[in-house]
Amino acid sequence: MTMTHPLDLALQLQSTSSGQYEGHTSPGYWNMVGPFGGITAAVLVKAVMDHPDRLGEPLSLTVNYAGALTAGPYTLQVTPVRTNRSTQHWTLSVLQTDGEGNLVVTTTATVVTAVRRETWSVSDEPMPEVAAPGDLPRIEPGFGVEWLQRYEMRQVQGGVPKDWDGSTSPSLSQLWMRDNPPRPLDFPALAALADVFFPRVWLRRARQVPAGTVSITVYFHASQDQLQTTGTGYVLGQARGQEFRNGFFDQTARLWNEAGYLLATSHQIVYFKE
Amino acid sequence: MTMTHPLDLALQLQSTSSGQYEGHTSPGYWNMVGPFGGITAAVLVKAVMDHPDRLGEPLSLTVNYAGALTAGPYTLQVTPVRTNRSTQHWTLSVLQTDGEGNLVVTTTATVVTAVRRETWSVSDEPMPEVAAPGDLPRIEPGFGVEWLQRYEMRQVQGGVPKDWDGSTSPSLSQLWMRDNPPRPLDFPALAALADVFFPRVWLRRARQVPAGTVSITVYFHASQDQLQTTGTGYVLGQARGQEFRNGFFDQTARLWNEAGYLLATSHQIVYFKE
Repeated sequence: MTMTHPLDLALQLQSTSSGQYEGHTSPGYWNMVGPFGGITAAVLVKAVMDHPDRLGEPLSLTVNYAGALTAGPYTLQVTPVRTNRSTQHWTLSVLQTDGEGNLVVTTTATVVTAVRRETWSVSDEPMPEVAAPGDLPRIEPGFGVEWLQRYEMRQVQGGVPKDWDGSTSPSLSQLWMRDNPPRPLDFPALAALADVFFPRVWLRRARQVPAGTVSITVYFHASQDQLQTTGTGYVLGQARGQEFRNGFFDQTARLWNEAGYLLATSHQIVYFKE
Repeated sequence: MTMTHPLDLALQLQSTSSGQYEGHTSPGYWNMVGPFGGITAAVLVKAVMDHPDRLGEPLSLTVNYAGALTAGPYTLQVTPVRTNRSTQHWTLSVLQTDGEGNLVVTTTATVVTAVRRETWSVSDEPMPEVAAPGDLPRIEPGFGVEWLQRYEMRQVQGGVPKDWDGSTSPSLSQLWMRDNPPRPLDFPALAALADVFFPRVWLRRARQVPAGTVSITVYFHASQDQLQTTGTGYVLGQARGQEFRNGFFDQTARLWNEAGYLLATSHQIVYFKE
């Protein structure tokens, strides 16, 4: 008997016509009122990866969460709007039929793929020196949400507050993470990992206010080969808030593999209440 | 006689039908082989600001530079794809007729606008302590490109290398900047300022290799009121490279006003050669 990995289940897409795919929300990645945002990002990347006209590998991804997906089928529209010699520009949207039978946009996205060539390279964000994943305890998934069960996380610093007592603290988190069960890293999985961090405002204020990502951008620095080398190893994620103001904050994040390669950098702007 | 500010000239748009605008590239913001990327970002923000159905103020902007605009007219398509109670999601594209008479996409973009309410707020990126703009010399615009004449810049650190000798240095720049001649700050002007920094790879390597922005994201933390208060004052811009790898690097940037308010944070991924 072969078990399909929960992530591969969630990424299953049926091509119905050129640039159109049908998917289905995955109970395994359910958050409080809709799918985990990272899984939507992963599905969008998967659709580009599957497209027969794709040139190169993902370089940049922006996902705008326009409205919550409801449990059920959805349609992906994936269009390569411009293909250059070494870059390709994509626009994407996720559509779903609402309660009144209207087809509505739940998500918009843009992706750039690129054929990369070896050049002078340097990392100006070396991986911080932290304890090895094996030396850190595994975090029990909290909040009673399903998608957290899909990740193995080992906190270095900046975990979910033990007491929601309104005390303030820095908004920096570092944690080792990987898919649960382990699964060889690829671009969709990496896109999802970039959105794993709990809302910085919860950490900053030790207050569990309503919060949700409005827009996330991921820059992929890794090649397919580097992801393959990373395999089922851990990824060190670091996230920090920059500005919390009048209902929105932004987060900057970095993801390294165990060998210290910066695989991706990411930013998001997040709604919060109060 | 009233003189129209060069930025307002560049931002002139004619609404031709619902969500469609005609613009014209502006010689005043010409870069080497096309318009300064920041001016394209500014025009896109302007189009959203002009749209009669707009809800709230710009919160997030992503611009993907798919192909160079050529000197001449262009068409903007601006669609509010989803309007929620307090956020609105926009997709945009810039189209131009190419040499063979085909309408091609030169730029894609997404914008989120939002109605913001006063909440708990905190800045985790305080403005660095730097010399006041009046104590720093004005930089002579270089490279013989026109758009640099449209900005007054006073470098704090990390200026354009004097010698292109291939020596390595940190990729951090700080400079005071504002429109030239001074013009009250608004969302389009702020979007353009986020793209003012010269390519980090030039600074990092003291080598003037071909480079160009592929995708930029700007998160607006300022309200219209704060921009109005900033007026014609200077903006402190700080930019830094994070990862330079195989033909692309990413840049993270922050923009404060003289009062120390973080007006915007921004990120971009940039192509470079060699």
